[in-house]
Amino acid sequence: MSQWIYGRNAVEGFIQSGQKVLELYAADTLKSDRIIRAAREKNIPVVFVPKTQLKRMSGTEKHQGFLAKAEDYKTYTLQELIDGAKKKYPLIVLLDGLEDPHNLGAILRSADAVNADGVVYAKNRSVSLNPTVAKVAVGAVNSVKVAEVTNLGTAIEKLKENGYWIVAAADKDAEDYRTIDYKCPIALVIGNEGKGISRLVMEKSDFRAGLPMKGKVNSLNASVAAGIFLYEIESNRFPPVKEGRHEKNNWR
Amino acid sequence: MSQWIYGRNAVEGFIQSGQKVLELYAADTLKSDRIIRAAREKNIPVVFVPKTQLKRMSGTEKHQGFLAKAEDYKTYTLQELIDGAKKKYPLIVLLDGLEDPHNLGAILRSADAVNADGVVYAKNRSVSLNPTVAKVAVGAVNSVKVAEVTNLGTAIEKLKENGYWIVAAADKDAEDYRTIDYKCPIALVIGNEGKGISRLVMEKSDFRAGLPMKGKVNSLNASVAAGIFLYEIESNRFPPVKEGRHEKNNWR
Repeated sequence: MSQWIYGRNAVEGFIQSGQKVLELYAADTLKSDRIIRAAREKNIPVVFVPKTQLKRMSGTEKHQGFLAKAEDYKTYTLQELIDGAKKKYPLIVLLDGLEDPHNLGAILRSADAVNADGVVYAKNRSVSLNPTVAKVAVGAVNSVKVAEVTNLGTAIEKLKENGYWIVAAADKDAEDYRTIDYKCPIALVIGNEGKGISRLVMEKSDFRAGLPMKGKVNSLNASVAAGIFLYEIESNRFPPVKEGRHEKNNWR
Repeated sequence: MSQWIYGRNAVEGFIQSGQKVLELYAADTLKSDRIIRAAREKNIPVVFVPKTQLKRMSGTEKHQGFLAKAEDYKTYTLQELIDGAKKKYPLIVLLDGLEDPHNLGAILRSADAVNADGVVYAKNRSVSLNPTVAKVAVGAVNSVKVAEVTNLGTAIEKLKENGYWIVAAADKDAEDYRTIDYKCPIALVIGNEGKGISRLVMEKSDFRAGLPMKGKVNSLNASVAAGIFLYEIESNRFPPVKEGRHEKNNWR
């Protein structure tokens, strides 16, 4: 399997991310473009073709003269995520039926920011890595390890066997997310945008943690909730260097 | 003028928010859905149509069987937001050139969840309320007061005159977001997805607060960052009722 990327910025960003490009197809009018030089430096084979052929190959007129064929997104096994966990207290994110590629992209970005040890979802039951996810994740699609498993319940059992505690981001019957001590290996479960976390996964969880909701809507956007949880876990594990908070300054 | 809202959660949230729905168009396969019952209870006229017609009317395949026609989005003046602030320490969100409707929708949802006193952006320099925003906001488009101003700098001056302190969510040269005491009237500034906060707005800010970034990407998704800030401000103002954190239970 391979993926195709088109468009000037997308192709240039992809080449620079270090992801392996198998072949670059470029319009024959662009032989001295800086993207061609960048590709040559990385020993990427370049094939010049007429623009009409690029349009045919990419299926769009928006190729802007560049079409790259790349290896499929690299994914890992759950065991590789567990073995590779580098944090003192490992942190893995489980996605239970996430649907929106914008959310997956944003969650990968947040997972990168807290140096999480991986993101896990069930193949065929969740959105997978695709060009939209990659665009939203601005590179995190390559810096965060992703494991596509066949069954999230089985993955949870395996994580438990390896000492992880399962925290479900729940929207009801939940305890305040700030009352849990996260200084242990944690797998954080984020549910589907509409339906939340499935019953089976919820039953396997050790904690049901919730965000206070003071308004009319009864849940946050899935990637926003994930970000708040990840930063709370980080904040519990690594408090600010300076203790306390300073008041407003009077220099205005 | 009227607005159109599509999608199951968005339409349901809209009906429940008490905002006036002029007409509800629903797929003719959903006649016994609970949304239909809710609409009938509120005396909203319901029209059943084939799914193909819903697709044509909404311009998307993501209608999930529901399309509501409602009165136009209500917006407020900045003065109305300031006068209407009900919190002990008011909280207003300023958006400096936000572009993505998904982000605006998610930010409205988070602003609702912390009961913020309003969201402000500069007309013509930011994405405005539209059906995509409304869908992502699942009702918060009506529960959160939005002010469209002509100039964000002028709005900041007015907020300062009214005792607000301006906190810029910055990605560099910033202090740790957890070291600021937010127990005062706060206006939180969220910047553009690519360019961040403009120089002028940054110069008018009282605090530059940042989220620790430990990975390869150098910023979070704008709505995720906004959510983390809003919950940190809330958490500082309203700590958990029970002090301390409990460790993992041993009941597994």
